[in-house]
Amino acid sequence: MTEPRMPAELADSAALRVMARCDTLAGISAAPDELTRVYLSPQHLRANQQVGAWMRAMGMRVWQDEVGNLCGRYEGLRPDLPAILLGSHLDTVRNAGRYDGMLGVLAALEVVHYLHQRRLRLPMAIEVIGFADEEGTRFGIALLGSRGITGNWPADWLDRRDAEGISVGQALRHAGLDPGLIGRAKRGQAAFCAYLELHIEQGPCLESAGLALGVVSAINGARRLNCRFTGVAGHAGTVPMAGRRDALNTAARWIARIDDIVASHGPDLVATVGELQCLPGAVNVIPGDVRLTLDVRGPDDRALAALLDGLLGCADDIAGRYGCVFSSGEFYRIDATPCDQRLQSLLADSLRKVQGVSLALPSGAGHDAIALAQSWPVGMLFVRCDRGISHHPDEAVTAPDVAAAVRAYLEAVLALSECQGSR
Amino acid sequence: MTEPRMPAELADSAALRVMARCDTLAGISAAPDELTRVYLSPQHLRANQQVGAWMRAMGMRVWQDEVGNLCGRYEGLRPDLPAILLGSHLDTVRNAGRYDGMLGVLAALEVVHYLHQRRLRLPMAIEVIGFADEEGTRFGIALLGSRGITGNWPADWLDRRDAEGISVGQALRHAGLDPGLIGRAKRGQAAFCAYLELHIEQGPCLESAGLALGVVSAINGARRLNCRFTGVAGHAGTVPMAGRRDALNTAARWIARIDDIVASHGPDLVATVGELQCLPGAVNVIPGDVRLTLDVRGPDDRALAALLDGLLGCADDIAGRYGCVFSSGEFYRIDATPCDQRLQSLLADSLRKVQGVSLALPSGAGHDAIALAQSWPVGMLFVRCDRGISHHPDEAVTAPDVAAAVRAYLEAVLALSECQGSR
Repeated sequence: MTEPRMPAELADSAALRVMARCDTLAGISAAPDELTRVYLSPQHLRANQQVGAWMRAMGMRVWQDEVGNLCGRYEGLRPDLPAILLGSHLDTVRNAGRYDGMLGVLAALEVVHYLHQRRLRLPMAIEVIGFADEEGTRFGIALLGSRGITGNWPADWLDRRDAEGISVGQALRHAGLDPGLIGRAKRGQAAFCAYLELHIEQGPCLESAGLALGVVSAINGARRLNCRFTGVAGHAGTVPMAGRRDALNTAARWIARIDDIVASHGPDLVATVGELQCLPGAVNVIPGDVRLTLDVRGPDDRALAALLDGLLGCADDIAGRYGCVFSSGEFYRIDATPCDQRLQSLLADSLRKVQGVSLALPSGAGHDAIALAQSWPVGMLFVRCDRGISHHPDEAVTAPDVAAAVRAYLEAVLALSECQGSR
Repeated sequence: MTEPRMPAELADSAALRVMARCDTLAGISAAPDELTRVYLSPQHLRANQQVGAWMRAMGMRVWQDEVGNLCGRYEGLRPDLPAILLGSHLDTVRNAGRYDGMLGVLAALEVVHYLHQRRLRLPMAIEVIGFADEEGTRFGIALLGSRGITGNWPADWLDRRDAEGISVGQALRHAGLDPGLIGRAKRGQAAFCAYLELHIEQGPCLESAGLALGVVSAINGARRLNCRFTGVAGHAGTVPMAGRRDALNTAARWIARIDDIVASHGPDLVATVGELQCLPGAVNVIPGDVRLTLDVRGPDDRALAALLDGLLGCADDIAGRYGCVFSSGEFYRIDATPCDQRLQSLLADSLRKVQGVSLALPSGAGHDAIALAQSWPVGMLFVRCDRGISHHPDEAVTAPDVAAAVRAYLEAVLALSECQGSR
């Protein structure tokens, strides 16, 4: 196996630049003591300008598209070649960390910087996009940026309103964009040959494995349900244990079984009860009604459906055995997004060059790649983050990990352009 | 075994009178469409007047004492004999049923009515008290009436305030009472030989057993704790099952064990988790912190303490096994009140006369007898209520059950006065 093409000292300085730029972007916030930068806010437009300036300095053509994505293009050997699309998002959740999204955009810029410094032109163009809205913080709908690129905005999105009653359409106008033109953000299928995204893991698997980098096998599908156990409320002092139909006790028997049921359905599946409410909810009243949420995720839709069947069947059984009734209703569903096999093996090769070994893992969180997979093959690279923390000011990566990430990212882009350009 | 001394047709008409009077008292309410009658309210004083009028009509001397209890005395063979004290309470919770408390006062009046109709005088006097506050609805402190009789008002009770900021002292004054004189409500130890209380069961045991009446063995002691399982919050999609320290999952494993632990500590014990809160509490976040309440009750304080030790020890074990920390703090405790053995057997005899069989059962709810047991032997008779419902407008008893109750109550009072009078 050959050495990575980016020398270690260049990767180190690239990493320091990425870290410093993450700090700069973290200062562009709607709130003084935290990082909050939502879609189409003045801060979002300022971040676009800042990243656009960095792009121009490395010879890219820069524009903001009709849904607010910041786009930069580094031409290949000839004008108008299809591009390898790189990117991630520039919006944040409220009180966010500074790496979720931004790290992927800034690492992509280092790939271009390396080429620009050497005046290298590839057999493919490279485009980098800082997506406008991945988190969905402002309007409660997510992936507005990447679904603008694929032309998949549902008809009602322009009318969705934020907490202050401002619609998406109004927000676009306030940002100087024309809601009538959002269709122009759509890119043709031939524009890109692939989408590669680098992102922090947002989970603890790489840290546990002692690795800086991993290759995403799939972005997990997810299903969310509101569940309910209905029993009979009663006086905590006067109803004997044997005569109870205690909805909380029954729900607890089910929750206590979830781990085993998940394990029996194979690896990489997770299930979580995150909210639970007892009714009537008093120290001296047996709960007659328990409402709770169930969130299940996994990289394979059939395995996920089987897990959900197993969990709901078990809930029915337990409810029946303890005199309660179980019911549930799904309120959210997203299919799994498998990453492209060829891109996975190409990314795995570059990881082996950089850190000697590769690790495949599913992504538990959603990413812009979900939207882009509708039009193009997608591949994702994960970077280790401290204790798996994300969506929190404590979100952290190390400069050495970022250096490894930039090296591997460049390696993958070069390999892809070579095999793609030779087709 | 001899026949009950009250003929069946007399008991039937007594029961109808009791039911009608319960309806009359249910009309004396602070709210038009529900029954709410709290301590020292105008409605409470009107109820006292109404019951006082009924008492006078059956030859009783009637007074309202210094804490607002309504007292009536039916003299025995000679003036100033010690009395058998009968009673229950005339206050209610908000949106109450019409039998909790009132049934016991009105059934006691039927005992006196029977004697008065026959001009019978016993070797003991009989006093009937309609206690002023058992529920604690207004001031958040309970048993104000019966603890006035035993002289056990804590020093700070006069300063306790209701939701409108009115103190107990002010409320006494508004009701025409002098807070400086509350000590005069205390009755000397020699005034009474025993306290007997008739009350609806507020639980389903008599209904399950197919019996109208039961004898209370003890009023359960109770302990209430705030409990907490502390784990680590995390992303529901990115943290693998094996790496989780899920506070809800851990709490559920404990709650699911409670039934078995209670059963292993013997009969008549109950334990309830009535409230549970997940933090942070979101569909896509693994709960890092669960707070819940534990309520345990039982007729024997030592058995209750052993049960609590068992439950808390199990919580510690389970928390440790699943990477969480368990903690708890007791915020309420009341010792069990065993009923007097002699009174229990006397009541059991009268039940056998009336319904052929007796059943002993603990009381899961609190009663005025708890306070009175500090000064006098107490005994309690339970009457079956529909589905165990109480503290609710659906609270219901049947006239035949009330007829049986009045017959048994008279029988017990006669037996007690005979053995007491012959001492």
